[in-house]
Amino acid sequence: MSVTAAKAFVAGGVHCGLRRAALDVALVRSTEPAVGAAMFTANRVKAAPVIVSREHLERAEPQAVVANSGNANAATGVRGVEDARATAACTARLLGLDDEQVIVLSTGVIGQPLPLERVLTGVERAAAMLSREGGDDAAQAILTTDTCAKTAVVRAGGFTVGGIAKGSGMIHPNLATMLAVVTTDYPLERGEAIELLRPAVEESFNSISVDGECSTNDTVVLLANGASAVARDDAAFAEALQQVCRELAAQIVADGEGATLTAEIAVTGAASGAEAKAIARRIATSPLVKTALFGKDANWGRVLAAAGSAPFNGGFAHLDADLVTVCYNGTTVLERGRPLGVEPDVDVAARIELDLGLGEGSARYLTTDLSYEYVRINAEYRT
Amino acid sequence: MSVTAAKAFVAGGVHCGLRRAALDVALVRSTEPAVGAAMFTANRVKAAPVIVSREHLERAEPQAVVANSGNANAATGVRGVEDARATAACTARLLGLDDEQVIVLSTGVIGQPLPLERVLTGVERAAAMLSREGGDDAAQAILTTDTCAKTAVVRAGGFTVGGIAKGSGMIHPNLATMLAVVTTDYPLERGEAIELLRPAVEESFNSISVDGECSTNDTVVLLANGASAVARDDAAFAEALQQVCRELAAQIVADGEGATLTAEIAVTGAASGAEAKAIARRIATSPLVKTALFGKDANWGRVLAAAGSAPFNGGFAHLDADLVTVCYNGTTVLERGRPLGVEPDVDVAARIELDLGLGEGSARYLTTDLSYEYVRINAEYRT
Repeated sequence: MSVTAAKAFVAGGVHCGLRRAALDVALVRSTEPAVGAAMFTANRVKAAPVIVSREHLERAEPQAVVANSGNANAATGVRGVEDARATAACTARLLGLDDEQVIVLSTGVIGQPLPLERVLTGVERAAAMLSREGGDDAAQAILTTDTCAKTAVVRAGGFTVGGIAKGSGMIHPNLATMLAVVTTDYPLERGEAIELLRPAVEESFNSISVDGECSTNDTVVLLANGASAVARDDAAFAEALQQVCRELAAQIVADGEGATLTAEIAVTGAASGAEAKAIARRIATSPLVKTALFGKDANWGRVLAAAGSAPFNGGFAHLDADLVTVCYNGTTVLERGRPLGVEPDVDVAARIELDLGLGEGSARYLTTDLSYEYVRINAEYRT
Repeated sequence: MSVTAAKAFVAGGVHCGLRRAALDVALVRSTEPAVGAAMFTANRVKAAPVIVSREHLERAEPQAVVANSGNANAATGVRGVEDARATAACTARLLGLDDEQVIVLSTGVIGQPLPLERVLTGVERAAAMLSREGGDDAAQAILTTDTCAKTAVVRAGGFTVGGIAKGSGMIHPNLATMLAVVTTDYPLERGEAIELLRPAVEESFNSISVDGECSTNDTVVLLANGASAVARDDAAFAEALQQVCRELAAQIVADGEGATLTAEIAVTGAASGAEAKAIARRIATSPLVKTALFGKDANWGRVLAAAGSAPFNGGFAHLDADLVTVCYNGTTVLERGRPLGVEPDVDVAARIELDLGLGEGSARYLTTDLSYEYVRINAEYRT
C-alpha cells in the first residue's frame, strides 16, 4: 500500500522505456485538496526538476507528484528546465490541476537530455491507471540501482502516514540521490507541512550515508489531505511522520550499493550536537572504516583516526584522544585513550559507539561497508 | 641516492621483524650540524611519535630521523609516548646526539603497542651501517602498502635537495598517512626551514588524495646542513624544494592503493583560492567520480555534482551551474552550463578542468581512481 495507505491517495507506475524492462514513471496524487511541502538537495548544482518544483511550491500547494527514473535531467541546461515544465504541465492537464500543483522528480544519469516524448507517454499511461492499489508500482517506478522497493506505513490515532523512497548509491546527508514521497490523511493547514517535515528529515534521511555523495536531485515530498478527518494530535503525527522517514532511511542504507552490512555510529559526549554529527558523519564516510567493515575487521584505530579529522568550522571537530572511549559491538576497545587489547567480533551488523568525554553533544548515523560490488556498480553504471 | 644525495648526509635501512621479509627501520642523519623543521598531521588524534617529535623540535634543531614501518604507534596511550621517547633516546645515544635532536616517525597499524625491543634492535643495526649509499634502503624501510620506493633529487646552483617518501592509502591533505624526509646541503639559518617547507608542502603533499583519509602519523621533515657551502639563492632553493616535494607527492598518487590511473583536477575561475581548493578536493575524493575513472567512463555529471557539494565555511563553496565550463581530457563537455553532447576518452590518465566563471581562484589536485584492488587491500590489511 505504502503511498496509497492514507485515505484519498491514488498512485501508479508504468514502463515508458527509460530503463530496460523496469517501471520508470510514477504518479502519486491526492483525490482531495491537499497541502504539502518538500525539501530539496543542498547541492549547488540543482537538477531541472528541483528548480521547477521549488518554483511550483512557492506558488501553490502540491496535489500530485510525477517522477521518472533512468534520467536525472540534471546538467541539462535550459532545455532541461523546459522538459521538467513540460512534464509537470502534461501531468496537470491529465489530472485537471494547475501546473504549479505538480511536483516533478527525476533520478538517473546526469548530463543527458531527458527523452521527453517517452516520459510524456509514460505520464499519460500512468494517469490512466491511477488507483488505490498503485502504490507498489509507484514504489518500483522510482528505483535506479536499488535492489528492492522501499515502503513504510504507520497508522496512529485514526490517521495514516505512508511513504515510498528510492536511494542506493550517492546517499548522504542533504538527501543525496534519494527521492521520497510521503502521504498522509492527517489534517494540516497551509504552511504547517514544512515545519513537521524538516525535523523528521534531519533525524532520518540526513543521518545516513552510503558513499558520502550529495546528489543534484534529492527531494522529499509530503502531501497531507486531511481525509482521515481526525482531531489534531500534532505530537502523534510528528512521531508517525518521523517513524516513516526513519524506516525509509534505514531501508535505503540496508540496500546501499554493494552493502554487506549496516553499521550504526553513535557519538556521545561531544562538545556540541553539531560536532557530534560532524564526527559521526566523518566515520560513516571514511573509506578505511568502510573497507574494514567489509573485511569484517573492527580495526577501531581507523575509527579513531577518522573521528580526529572531522571537518568542522574550517578545522576539525573537538576531540581529545586521551578522553575518548570506543565501544565496538558492545566490547570496550579503548577506554579514555587507553587501548584494552581486546578484539570485538564483526558480523552482519556493527554498532560503533564513541564517548568523547567533552560535553553533552550526541548524534547517530547509519552507514554501510564499502565492497567490491560498490565499485563494480559504479564503474559500470552507464555501460 | 635520494636522501643522501646532498653532501654530508648518511642513511640506512634494516629489517627488525615488524614487517614480513621487508626492511622496516630507517635512519637518516646529517654528519654536520644541521637546522630543520617538520610539518605534522592536523588530525586531532596524533600518534605518539608525532607528539614526541613536536616536543623535540621545540627544543632543538633536528640532526637525525628514525622511522619504523609496520606499526603506527598511534592510539597506544601513555605507553606509546614512552616507546617513542625510548626510540629517540636509543638513536641519540648511538649517534652521539641529544634525544631532542632526533625526530621519530612511525607508520602502520593503529592501536597496537609498538614492539619496542625489535625496534631498538633495528635502530642499533641501522646505526651501525649508516652510509652515503644507504638512501635506497632507508627509502624501502619506510614503506607499508606501497608497491615501490619514492625518491627525488634536484640539483641546482651548487646545492642538492633529495627526499624519500612513503604513502599509498590514507593519502589526503594534511599529509594523510604519508611520511617524507627531505635533506639538503643548502645553507639555512635557524628558524628559516619552516617558512620554506610550508608553501612547498601546501602545493604538493597537501594537494593530493588517494582516499580522503587524514592519518594520525603524517610528517614531512626537512634537514639542511649547509655542507654545499654555496652562496644563498633562496628563490632557487625554494623552487628546488618544491620540485622535490611535488615529485614525491606525484609518486605517492601514482602508487595509490589499487590505482589504475592518475587524475589531475584543475579548478579555475572560483570565487577564491580556498574555494577552488575545496572544490578540487571534493571532486578528487568523490567515490562516484573515482569509480567512474576506474570504469574509464568520463561521466562528467558526477564531477559537476561533486563540485556543487564542496564543503566550505559550513556550507558549500560558491558555484553557479549556469556558468560552469567542464573540459575533460581536452574535450569541452559542458560550456557555461550547456552540455555539448560529446563523449571524451578516458585511458590511463585523466585531466579534468573546471572553469567556474566566478572569479580568480584556482587550485590543482592529484587523485586516483577507486578500484576493486583498493577495497581488497584495505579489507584485508590486517589479515
